[in-house]
Amino acid sequence: MEIEVDSGKLAKALSIVSRVAAGSKATLPILNNVLIRVDAGKVSLTTTNLDMAVVDYLPVSKSKDGVITVPARLLAEFAANLPKGNVVKITTDGVKVNVETKGYKSTLNGAVADDFPELPGIDEKKAVRFKMGVDEFKVGVNQVTVASSNDMTRPALTGVYFNTDGGALYIAATDGYRLSERKFIEKVQAEVKAIVPTSSLSEVMRSLGEETEEVEILFDETQVRFRAGEIEITSKLIDGSFPDYRQLIPKEVEAEIVVPKDELVRVTKLAALFAREVGGSIVLEAKTATGTFAVAAVANEYGENSSEIETEVTKDERITLNSRFLIDALNALDEEKVKLGFSGKLSPILVKNEKSDKYTHIIMPLKS
Amino acid sequence: MEIEVDSGKLAKALSIVSRVAAGSKATLPILNNVLIRVDAGKVSLTTTNLDMAVVDYLPVSKSKDGVITVPARLLAEFAANLPKGNVVKITTDGVKVNVETKGYKSTLNGAVADDFPELPGIDEKKAVRFKMGVDEFKVGVNQVTVASSNDMTRPALTGVYFNTDGGALYIAATDGYRLSERKFIEKVQAEVKAIVPTSSLSEVMRSLGEETEEVEILFDETQVRFRAGEIEITSKLIDGSFPDYRQLIPKEVEAEIVVPKDELVRVTKLAALFAREVGGSIVLEAKTATGTFAVAAVANEYGENSSEIETEVTKDERITLNSRFLIDALNALDEEKVKLGFSGKLSPILVKNEKSDKYTHIIMPLKS
Repeated sequence: MEIEVDSGKLAKALSIVSRVAAGSKATLPILNNVLIRVDAGKVSLTTTNLDMAVVDYLPVSKSKDGVITVPARLLAEFAANLPKGNVVKITTDGVKVNVETKGYKSTLNGAVADDFPELPGIDEKKAVRFKMGVDEFKVGVNQVTVASSNDMTRPALTGVYFNTDGGALYIAATDGYRLSERKFIEKVQAEVKAIVPTSSLSEVMRSLGEETEEVEILFDETQVRFRAGEIEITSKLIDGSFPDYRQLIPKEVEAEIVVPKDELVRVTKLAALFAREVGGSIVLEAKTATGTFAVAAVANEYGENSSEIETEVTKDERITLNSRFLIDALNALDEEKVKLGFSGKLSPILVKNEKSDKYTHIIMPLKS
Repeated sequence: MEIEVDSGKLAKALSIVSRVAAGSKATLPILNNVLIRVDAGKVSLTTTNLDMAVVDYLPVSKSKDGVITVPARLLAEFAANLPKGNVVKITTDGVKVNVETKGYKSTLNGAVADDFPELPGIDEKKAVRFKMGVDEFKVGVNQVTVASSNDMTRPALTGVYFNTDGGALYIAATDGYRLSERKFIEKVQAEVKAIVPTSSLSEVMRSLGEETEEVEILFDETQVRFRAGEIEITSKLIDGSFPDYRQLIPKEVEAEIVVPKDELVRVTKLAALFAREVGGSIVLEAKTATGTFAVAAVANEYGENSSEIETEVTKDERITLNSRFLIDALNALDEEKVKLGFSGKLSPILVKNEKSDKYTHIIMPLKS
């Protein structure tokens, strides 16, 4: 095997694929390695953690077919420290991998590719396929993943639910205390119901370069593949059933409050400071008598706190919430004003952009 | 007690003093608090961790004398979240501290000031005094503290040694494996020999604002005070004797190598990657035969690595070093080229700027 490649391009590709190489936590040592394959002049760098695989296709100036694996992190850091714009020559001598460029010479101890576990392929001809702009993809994924769970005892909640409904593609996530949903693609032909691990989606997000414009998403029965530019990320789907979440979203609310988002973030953070040692409980209160919307921390050993925002109030409402969940929800919105929907102190609060209807976030109340 | 103060100024002063308030690690709960004192219209914010105290004098628009303590971190974060440019009114009602500004109202539970432990004062009239520009101060402290130790069993090495010699003020630090010295002030009248805790110096460094131009340093027998702008940091000195370090610095070397600093940093980092799992040992080698200076990691299970820089070599030299120490030393230099002084493989290597003689760094060799 032999390749000649620009040092900057090598460093960039390795920085993406090396993150998935499992590092010292790997049960299989070869998972720490990157698979370098040259096949008919096409060079690919592959890493996997058994749940997910990343492939980056590397543009090279010269190559000879062959295949080898080398420690991914070592090679990535090595490449990152080389001067930019140099031509790097990588050659193999058995399992020894020589990396050379003007003034620098290294030999890495590699391992044969036979032991490298590759994920099963996706039959792209049979797969369900979606395409979307990368900006829309990023916004949507960020808005939704915030509500996903880390609790491995409920695997379905550690993922993002891709589902089609009425000719549109939606994504949704919930940790049981809050739920977020985004209309992802307005009109689609195909249908899908699949739970993508949030960790895999995060890896896709980190891999999207500045120059990527489009993301292609392919599903088969058990796997999903994201393709963007030179990068292809394939992940197992989560085998489980996602809650029937649409019934949890209130169709109507008793009262709506519209307030500037930045101001609500600020007063929520102030209240959160006082609520820190009492589980983050804060009280939201809309008062018709004063035309104010108040955010307060319950009095505790640190003191007490209340802030008011003047706004139109049609009905007295009062609800107790986890301050962190409210801040997460507000940060996921992308308009200047936020619309809060109340249905009494026992019902979830609805958090939406003032105008756009694409994104829905609900938070369950705390007992008060 | 009562003060009216600009929210931005309050936030800035609290961000500095609250760092020293000991947080949850405090054995004395009142150390978590900031002492707010208004005395004849002068407002000071004080925190201490018993080894060190920080005072920030706060410009206020209105005040009534009095004194109280409140949780420093809570008040600091509260102030940081208020809108900029607001007038904040702080008043006391017993140990309750009310903080109010347009739309926001909080009550913090404070504590009486009687229990707040203040450091003994310095008699400034009798103190030894130095003054210097803040830029010079920052550069010198950064260059020297890198070699100071974290090993609490050898307290004298956890500080920076301020010492006068031949009419100049020097600062020096060593952890037993490397040593750094900087000529701090060219000409001074007074004399001093004192070990300042590196942790206190770091706090001084963090507190120096953009607009500060001068640092005043005062020593008495047991304490040091740094004064810069509105901030005054007083610290206990370390009670111990600093090694007679000047005898450790080689007066002459066998051979000198001059190389571009950035290039030497780069090749040292490359070698360090391969040396990571073998304690960071790298070999520097100057070869007269080829006129090259080589940096190599010793071959190990990950592979091997060698890089060469062309330069003038007058004598063959070879030394084994800890790569991290060399990188630290190089990062502390401020010229484009670095001068390395060799005296055989058992003697310390001298690392200096090519031209300026103000800064000296030596690194002990490893056995090879």
